[in-house]
Amino acid sequence: MAALRSSAIRDLLAVTARPEVLSLAGGLPDPGLVPLDRIRVATARALESAESLQYTETAGLLALREVIARRESASRPQPVAAAEVAVTHGSQQALSLIAQVLVDPGATVVVEEPAYPGALQVLRAAQARILTVPLDADGMRTDRLADLLAAGERPVLVHTVSTFHNPRGVTLSAPRRRELAALAERYGFLVVEDDPYGELHYAGLPPEPLAAQSDRVVRLSSVSKTLAPALRVGWMVAPREICAAVELVKQGADLCDSRLAHEIVSELLVDEPWLDGHLGALRAEYGRRADALRGAVQREFGDRATLSRIGGGMFGWLEFHDGTDTDELLRAALDHAVAFVPGSAFAVDARDRAGARLCFTTNTPARLDEAVARLAAAHAG
Amino acid sequence: MAALRSSAIRDLLAVTARPEVLSLAGGLPDPGLVPLDRIRVATARALESAESLQYTETAGLLALREVIARRESASRPQPVAAAEVAVTHGSQQALSLIAQVLVDPGATVVVEEPAYPGALQVLRAAQARILTVPLDADGMRTDRLADLLAAGERPVLVHTVSTFHNPRGVTLSAPRRRELAALAERYGFLVVEDDPYGELHYAGLPPEPLAAQSDRVVRLSSVSKTLAPALRVGWMVAPREICAAVELVKQGADLCDSRLAHEIVSELLVDEPWLDGHLGALRAEYGRRADALRGAVQREFGDRATLSRIGGGMFGWLEFHDGTDTDELLRAALDHAVAFVPGSAFAVDARDRAGARLCFTTNTPARLDEAVARLAAAHAG
Repeated sequence: MAALRSSAIRDLLAVTARPEVLSLAGGLPDPGLVPLDRIRVATARALESAESLQYTETAGLLALREVIARRESASRPQPVAAAEVAVTHGSQQALSLIAQVLVDPGATVVVEEPAYPGALQVLRAAQARILTVPLDADGMRTDRLADLLAAGERPVLVHTVSTFHNPRGVTLSAPRRRELAALAERYGFLVVEDDPYGELHYAGLPPEPLAAQSDRVVRLSSVSKTLAPALRVGWMVAPREICAAVELVKQGADLCDSRLAHEIVSELLVDEPWLDGHLGALRAEYGRRADALRGAVQREFGDRATLSRIGGGMFGWLEFHDGTDTDELLRAALDHAVAFVPGSAFAVDARDRAGARLCFTTNTPARLDEAVARLAAAHAG
Repeated sequence: MAALRSSAIRDLLAVTARPEVLSLAGGLPDPGLVPLDRIRVATARALESAESLQYTETAGLLALREVIARRESASRPQPVAAAEVAVTHGSQQALSLIAQVLVDPGATVVVEEPAYPGALQVLRAAQARILTVPLDADGMRTDRLADLLAAGERPVLVHTVSTFHNPRGVTLSAPRRRELAALAERYGFLVVEDDPYGELHYAGLPPEPLAAQSDRVVRLSSVSKTLAPALRVGWMVAPREICAAVELVKQGADLCDSRLAHEIVSELLVDEPWLDGHLGALRAEYGRRADALRGAVQREFGDRATLSRIGGGMFGWLEFHDGTDTDELLRAALDHAVAFVPGSAFAVDARDRAGARLCFTTNTPARLDEAVARLAAAHAG
């Protein structure tokens, strides 16, 4: 079922590949903002030696694990060791391997409603018993999670996209981070803090990572949104016994990642002056696009719909107040050559049909204006 | 258990990284024979556009699936379509995804004895019921498989490293390929023809692929042994409904592979004059090393041990006739600064302790002479 839904999004994305369609449906970085020149330089350097083209360690090239550990240590009370980092083939693979290690068939897990479909797909494949906790403007409703736990539910893990949520755009507040960490300690579950977007902040820093609050956190991130998706470098930071178990499972899954990619990413992450400049430019440009989306939505929809506050990431969540069904709106929108992903694609228990995920990263402000105007025309019918 | 064994090999490989150790233990191509210059050119071309750094289709870049389909078609009665190709993160991932799609817990599968540990690991993780069929100089004993089937066993799949077996070095003969295909048709199982070594032939072409005999074959291969492991490009050629199912599972496993790697490999596989020259040079040099290994083993061990005929691939299988236990020999060998993988690492039902896998690809003839001399010294005690 998850697979079918997910496949429906892919079918949709195939339609949006038509050049006349303005797409708010993707979840991609803008290729125009990928640091192509810097990647060329790092690639050429890595290709000075054929050793870069050999097999590498299953846990990931040590130099890369070390720089990730160093960067992660900056936001933690205790320094992170390289043995607490496992590099994976994108952070989706980290999710998949964690589920193989931690989730037996029938085990209870908690996800957010609405949820990232890639997490749902993995947990359904693991035959988990999936419970949901709703989101509001401050992220996961930890009070509702506390209710589930008080009622006797004992999840093995709780999955959250803590910062700049996909699809809802919201960020878990600092008090709720403390509460979630305290619940994890008290009830003995692991929090999977899925954070591919945290570096993309446009209105101040997000609260410190959940992983700073508790050892019962497996923190995932990746360079797919900040450097380039095709590097396929994601990672998990977790207690070393979980990293060791994930490493064994990864051996069976694909032996190891690309040493070449690991060398390229090591070089880019170590070059902090360059990286800071690159991330600054990315934040400035994506921030402008987020503002443009907000302006266009207010202009076109007024009080018939509300766009979530966009503090960072790639998505705004548009919620209609006029009875619009966004599955139906999508059909009309495609006729008007604009695409988005309807909320139903992210539903777990499928109650809400009024939401829509709008991605603002791959269009300029002028194209975002035009896209939202087309969406309004489709809405007007 | 598979994981532990496999991990034992990795611990061993860590020891062999000591510079004074001559290693016959690996299963790696020689970095000195990786086509570094040609890969540099293809990489630079792919990096002319930032689109190469974007996400790509889960099934693999169409251009790559097309060239793989074209190359596979050369040895088949019917042309292979791109929809019958799924590109994976090395062929180990293909194995892992196939197991997820085809093998339910408790399902019966058949592997060779001794077996490729990566296949065993995947099938054990899938909680398959694993039966074994022995090998001889003509590959899998298909008569023994026929006995199992006649006795009522109904495997969902039969895994074979059909050509230049890992670890045994043997190749399934043409008559046995026909018999295995006929058994698959008759009893309705799938054959997983795991063939990463077939292009590395040093003494004439191997028989045509099993996949040429029957539609009930899932054929796996990769560029890890012919171009470079770090490209992480493997693939399966299978009926399109299996490819479609694998694609859905791969979405959850890691979303997609590296478009950059797919563009590089597409360019190298399309450039047939270059590729033919490269493969020719690789065959000539590895063939020389295989001959050197044979010569050294005959010189040092005489009739106390037999080396398998080496028609291609990366391994010779040394079988002792004097009661040597190769687990014990390994300890002595490491004291003499030479390493190999004992047969126990590949055992499924663990009867045979007289075998050793010797990899000849990463050492020159002179170093192979020295490695086998050290092994003989260790053997002499």
